Amino acid sequence: MNNLLVRYLPIMTWGRTYNRSAFTNDMVAALIVTIMLIPQSLAYALLAGLPPEAGLYASILPIILYAIFGTSRALAVGPVAVVSLMTAAALGNIVDQGTVGYAMAALTLAFLSGAMLLAMGLFRLGFVANFLSHPVIAGFITASGIIIAASQLKHILGIGGGGDTLVEIVEGLFEHIGEVNWITLVIGVSATGFLFWVRKGLKPLLRKMGASAGLADVATKAGPVAGVVLTTAAVWLFGLADKGVAIVGEVPQSLPPLTMPDFSPDLLWQLLLPAFLLSIIGFVESISVAQTLAAKKRQRINPDQELIGLGAANLGAAFTGGFPVTGGFSRSVVNYDAGAETPAAGAYTAVGLAIAALALTPLIYFLPKATLAATIIVAVLSLVDFSILKRSWAYSKADFAAVLATILLTLTMGVETGVSAGVALSVILHLYKSSKPHIAEVGLVPGTEHFRNILRHRVETNPKVVNLRVDESLYFANARFLEDKIYDRVARDKDVRHVVLQCCAINEIDLSALESLEAINSRLSEMDVSLHLSEVKGPVMDVLKRAHFLDELTGKVYLSQFEAASALK
Amino acid sequence: MNNLLVRYLPIMTWGRTYNRSAFTNDMVAALIVTIMLIPQSLAYALLAGLPPEAGLYASILPIILYAIFGTSRALAVGPVAVVSLMTAAALGNIVDQGTVGYAMAALTLAFLSGAMLLAMGLFRLGFVANFLSHPVIAGFITASGIIIAASQLKHILGIGGGGDTLVEIVEGLFEHIGEVNWITLVIGVSATGFLFWVRKGLKPLLRKMGASAGLADVATKAGPVAGVVLTTAAVWLFGLADKGVAIVGEVPQSLPPLTMPDFSPDLLWQLLLPAFLLSIIGFVESISVAQTLAAKKRQRINPDQELIGLGAANLGAAFTGGFPVTGGFSRSVVNYDAGAETPAAGAYTAVGLAIAALALTPLIYFLPKATLAATIIVAVLSLVDFSILKRSWAYSKADFAAVLATILLTLTMGVETGVSAGVALSVILHLYKSSKPHIAEVGLVPGTEHFRNILRHRVETNPKVVNLRVDESLYFANARFLEDKIYDRVARDKDVRHVVLQCCAINEIDLSALESLEAINSRLSEMDVSLHLSEVKGPVMDVLKRAHFLDELTGKVYLSQFEAASALK
Repeated sequence: MNNLLVRYLPIMTWGRTYNRSAFTNDMVAALIVTIMLIPQSLAYALLAGLPPEAGLYASILPIILYAIFGTSRALAVGPVAVVSLMTAAALGNIVDQGTVGYAMAALTLAFLSGAMLLAMGLFRLGFVANFLSHPVIAGFITASGIIIAASQLKHILGIGGGGDTLVEIVEGLFEHIGEVNWITLVIGVSATGFLFWVRKGLKPLLRKMGASAGLADVATKAGPVAGVVLTTAAVWLFGLADKGVAIVGEVPQSLPPLTMPDFSPDLLWQLLLPAFLLSIIGFVESISVAQTLAAKKRQRINPDQELIGLGAANLGAAFTGGFPVTGGFSRSVVNYDAGAETPAAGAYTAVGLAIAALALTPLIYFLPKATLAATIIVAVLSLVDFSILKRSWAYSKADFAAVLATILLTLTMGVETGVSAGVALSVILHLYKSSKPHIAEVGLVPGTEHFRNILRHRVETNPKVVNLRVDESLYFANARFLEDKIYDRVARDKDVRHVVLQCCAINEIDLSALESLEAINSRLSEMDVSLHLSEVKGPVMDVLKRAHFLDELTGKVYLSQFEAASALK
Repeated sequence: MNNLLVRYLPIMTWGRTYNRSAFTNDMVAALIVTIMLIPQSLAYALLAGLPPEAGLYASILPIILYAIFGTSRALAVGPVAVVSLMTAAALGNIVDQGTVGYAMAALTLAFLSGAMLLAMGLFRLGFVANFLSHPVIAGFITASGIIIAASQLKHILGIGGGGDTLVEIVEGLFEHIGEVNWITLVIGVSATGFLFWVRKGLKPLLRKMGASAGLADVATKAGPVAGVVLTTAAVWLFGLADKGVAIVGEVPQSLPPLTMPDFSPDLLWQLLLPAFLLSIIGFVESISVAQTLAAKKRQRINPDQELIGLGAANLGAAFTGGFPVTGGFSRSVVNYDAGAETPAAGAYTAVGLAIAALALTPLIYFLPKATLAATIIVAVLSLVDFSILKRSWAYSKADFAAVLATILLTLTMGVETGVSAGVALSVILHLYKSSKPHIAEVGLVPGTEHFRNILRHRVETNPKVVNLRVDESLYFANARFLEDKIYDRVARDKDVRHVVLQCCAINEIDLSALESLEAINSRLSEMDVSLHLSEVKGPVMDVLKRAHFLDELTGKVYLSQFEAASALK
């Protein structure tokens, strides 16, 4: 019982040794993260197509639940850009933005995602996420960043528009370009410029002016808040809301409300695939942040338990007016850098955000949406990184094809199609590669016991013996390829009496491959050719024995290729 | 030009050396095969839901085209049981049997299948067929055999019914069981019993009576014809057709007509997937027969050219009133055993069948459908073989799961679902297996230079060094698994200062795995642990160099694990 508790409740481990020093460090980190999260949470709610307070709600209970169930000590959970985009894309196809149904569907999506993550964690199915290859993720994040940035331009311009793909968004912008609100544009462009400058130029400037590194850091992080304060003040002072500048408006002053997702089977069914994709993407993003930060302190991250933590966080979001959440990169890094020692820092952040939701919302009445859009644009443009195209091109054409397809399809067909196609393509290309394994004909390097490719090295061969080295495990997709190669080689050369397969690189032989070996063995025997094996690995040998293949084998199994060659001389 | 001709027209190779002796042997084989094919062709047309003459037509031009384009010297192309069943299943969902549209759709299916096979051959895409694992094929063939046999029971009973799955067929039988025609039942049961006896008992009997082996063989093969003759005569003499015995009836006396498939986009779209599955199944069946027979004479089969040959045959069927065809097992074996030397034997068979279509069809007016059903049942029951379940259970649970799913889904959901699910499941299980590769911590076997699993052998270890051997190529699906394993191992043991990866079983490292290695390298370095590699294969080393990974590596690359251990002592 106690073991189970420790396994599923990491808080039981770190909670026992929690002390005053950890508390102080966690409090400081929480304060900094809270200041950073307020504008970010509002902005991501906007991106997801939800009212701003949903962003705050999505950060409160989820953070606390992750603190209880998660294994990372620094991960900060809440709305993040890509997951918010995926939320908007998933819901946009089903319900109209701004309706009660939309917010309900967001709760349902968070619920489904939470349930899936929790189930994957309990049944240890985290490996599913491994089918998202790095290049596919990199391509997907880059394309998503572009779509997100493009989708915010309408707020900067103060016009209408919409769409889930780059094509739709650009069309929407052109359609509404005549309606530009110039004051909004000025605010939006200034805010964007200011935030970029805070990110790149403020820190060096402060350092040059003699500020300490710590102060410069905090100032940089508080930059977005300054942007919020300045633009809100400007709108309020000059009455710009009456001149068509879109503002956040009234936000209820309340703790997260208790909400119930919509469990209608139709909706659940429609959201099933989006929820799955969003969960996997969120999990992959979260775990890589968690592992990066844990490595710095030699801490362990348990992927299955992470699934449970994120699952609990999403379930929390579903029942408290939020939307899908995951561990975010920037907020987690800030949390870590600010000295967070335990997940309790997250809980204190939650308290800070709860106070904000309760007390500070009247202050953001005049906050222009253009400022939030600027926050989003500046945050996501750091995600856009086309270097993966160059890198994958240089490394392998298969990886390049998967990245390119992911980027192009995400931009033109939407996030769900893009990421699904990327995964499908990388699986197919992987299977294709392993379906045509490298099979080298080898010969003896004179004066040694080594065998090398006859095409690359000067080696000794025996006209009666063909030595083949297979550089891949044998399974159904390449079993027939091996058959073809061997029949071809033997039919080409009537002198051959022995075929020796050097099996040092064969880690597995499945039933199809075994049957192919049996067919090879019996067909070769009809041609008066014996089949031999050499350097068979222990586990493979066990399997061949169990299947009685060795009894049928017309030749022998040799410990080494050299032994085989000597015996057949 | 000449090379191209030789490559794409195998007839250019064997045609040049064709002589009188080959001609005689081919003619004898053709005669025997023709006699065997007449009832079989009629029966498979019935199985496909088409008029009997379609079976003859499907055997004439296709055989000739395969003789020109195919590489097997003994393969006999025409309607076969499983492909006929798949034809019926594909068409049954779209058009009603017995209508003109049904026959047209059969032509379209043959056309699509021919075009796909041809394209796969020209673009060398034959590897696609490799994703059908042996156990999945075995399960599929067994389940198809059961469905086919069950589907013929209605003809034996002389009742109505139908259905594409075992469930539907059995339901249909129960529904119509009251309509049994007892005379039909007597004919059907006698014919089935007779054919079984011919197959099993006739040859030993004739041999015991002193007949030569050759004569006994021919008699066995002519058995079905005897069945046809006897039951046809019985129906004719006793006027049984008037008593409700279903007969073949009028069959046009004609050479294969020139026909045009229906190219409406809707139909093409609906038949796309069925045509693809049917083409792949047909190709796999055909090539394994061709390879078995070719091996006996040390002849070569070119899989890409086989695709072209089968593609041409199906296109031929599409334009001459046929339906999808492939190389059949029993007819090819008979052809081979009867002494066929070249594909010309196929052409002579075609002539024989053309004569039959032109002259003999009035003779089969009174042929009872029950006899054809008996022919099918006896032929397909030899396909049913549940031993694959036992064999795969003993060999590997993953293979077993794929077989079981294929059999159950084929029987209950139909052939297309069954085979698709089998393929999908075997791919997923393969990926799952390779996503959790065997990673052994190894230590030095005292007094040797060998490293073995520390859990299985008494070995020397060094508390500062972790030696890990990865028994699988590294790619996206297992890259993160490796990361987790290493972080886990290192976080568990604070003394560790070096991690050595023994890479002897790593045949490939894709970009995801490279990035995981980079992450491992940099995260370990944050923990003050160096990463080393040993026994890296040449091609993998090239790739790592090209990606500049070796420049970043905190440790070194050693030629052998022993060298690494010595250096780090």
